[in-house]
Amino acid sequence: MIAQEISGGRFVRQPNRFTDTITADGSSGYPAEPGRYRLFVSYACPWAHRTLIVRRLLGLEAAIGVGVVDPIRDERGWRFPERDEVTGAVFLSELYLSSDPSFEGRYTVPCVWDTVTERLVTNDYPKITTMFETEFAAHHRAGAPDLYPAELRLEIDALNEVVFTTVNNGVYKAGFATAQDAYEEAFDALFETLDRLEERLAGRRYLFGDRVTEADVRLYPTLARFDAVYYSHFKCNLRRLVDYPNLWAYARDLYAIPAFGGTTDFDHIKRHYYGTHPHINPSGVVPKGPAMDWTAPHGRAHLGTG
Amino acid sequence: MIAQEISGGRFVRQPNRFTDTITADGSSGYPAEPGRYRLFVSYACPWAHRTLIVRRLLGLEAAIGVGVVDPIRDERGWRFPERDEVTGAVFLSELYLSSDPSFEGRYTVPCVWDTVTERLVTNDYPKITTMFETEFAAHHRAGAPDLYPAELRLEIDALNEVVFTTVNNGVYKAGFATAQDAYEEAFDALFETLDRLEERLAGRRYLFGDRVTEADVRLYPTLARFDAVYYSHFKCNLRRLVDYPNLWAYARDLYAIPAFGGTTDFDHIKRHYYGTHPHINPSGVVPKGPAMDWTAPHGRAHLGTG
Repeated sequence: MIAQEISGGRFVRQPNRFTDTITADGSSGYPAEPGRYRLFVSYACPWAHRTLIVRRLLGLEAAIGVGVVDPIRDERGWRFPERDEVTGAVFLSELYLSSDPSFEGRYTVPCVWDTVTERLVTNDYPKITTMFETEFAAHHRAGAPDLYPAELRLEIDALNEVVFTTVNNGVYKAGFATAQDAYEEAFDALFETLDRLEERLAGRRYLFGDRVTEADVRLYPTLARFDAVYYSHFKCNLRRLVDYPNLWAYARDLYAIPAFGGTTDFDHIKRHYYGTHPHINPSGVVPKGPAMDWTAPHGRAHLGTG
Repeated sequence: MIAQEISGGRFVRQPNRFTDTITADGSSGYPAEPGRYRLFVSYACPWAHRTLIVRRLLGLEAAIGVGVVDPIRDERGWRFPERDEVTGAVFLSELYLSSDPSFEGRYTVPCVWDTVTERLVTNDYPKITTMFETEFAAHHRAGAPDLYPAELRLEIDALNEVVFTTVNNGVYKAGFATAQDAYEEAFDALFETLDRLEERLAGRRYLFGDRVTEADVRLYPTLARFDAVYYSHFKCNLRRLVDYPNLWAYARDLYAIPAFGGTTDFDHIKRHYYGTHPHINPSGVVPKGPAMDWTAPHGRAHLGTG
């Protein structure tokens, strides 16, 4: 967050600067060629987390390379632990500024770099996962799930919109608020949605029945960070994830899938949030808790085949 | 807390300036006369909370008057909502500085004012409750409990020492730490003691069996503030109070006693901590949660007569 994103005590997320798209037929100028693009992520960032989950679920690891930044970000923005092996960058800002020397916003992950034209194609995180799901279909592993089935897209998009506004971005609106009323509005909307999702998951294994979809991919990163960070650091403390029996079992059910659990790094998550927001946590001290057992049996197999 | 109380990233609580004592026989110069002394408290402060509990348990309401400060404290220290009706003070600092013009520390509650000599007798909070229990015995209500029985004092004092160091003051050491190691040391000691208390309370209704003692009076104020404040604001987040079945039921058992529940003001508690520590919570936003049911049945009556 930068100061420009707070207005009247409310957090207003900046627009995404790079919105080109990679297409299967190359009509956009960016054809979906294996080995051509590099995805930059942080394990801490929930928006980047989505892209890692989808890349692994679909078996795109060989087709799309990944560069991972350090969890701790200072005023210079995201940084690589060592010089990025493909682009040679030390800071993510280098890629933003070489693509657009006039860029003045926050340098965000996820973003996708084109190694041919040597520029950023997109940092438009809501579209990166669906781009992987549709435009890269020819490169999916055999038997990869259809995360964004044509017949469900309208419903998935509608649910994603509510989840984005009140949950994914809702926790940020609560945590970054500097006005009590802006905080309370975000808090109320967040828990209203979580209560509804808790009911929805009582009789369904995943948000759209017995198969994982893009909707699960978008909800999970927020649930994974909820008790570790958002509950305390962002003051989202009406209830913890573990106080919702269905949501908590659902989150563990997803965690047991390698694409979800294997991309979830609680150490990066905690160190990032507590170490990167001096306006919320001036001491930079990182809490040792909470005690959570993500590998406890989820008991949801009877709800669907998965 | 003031900056002088942080040393090498560690919180070191200031010594108590006023340490005179009121005595039943008047040998200290301050005889235990009903109506002579005024107790100053904040409902937010755990050290002051003790004195309110004891005053009510022992029926000392008529003998010892009370002045309550505002929950929000700024750089001028505690303030009265309106001019204190007995001393005429607007700020608690006036009573400290009229008693000792050279005083430079933090103005703390609880403290006891003598209306005859017009000075502070004591702000030595560890001794105020036992002073009410022993020196004011002639003024206790008929049938008042013996909170500090002679035959248990050594054991009560020993337990209180551990509880003070690791729990009552332990949460402050965790929350005010600016160094990770100081925080973690306080955190580990805190939860080690809570784990031991959880076991101790499995077979005993109160810390010393079937009657409430000074030990319960000292533990309760920290438990009452634990999930509402210390868990998030002071990063004491391994487990919540509600995750400890015995401690949580014990806390509700005490809450059901008017001297405990009737002196517990969650609104003052939350507004005070979140509004008074800009070095921990710069925005001053007060969390709406957590959802807790302090009046749920405690189910502990079978453990003792109470």
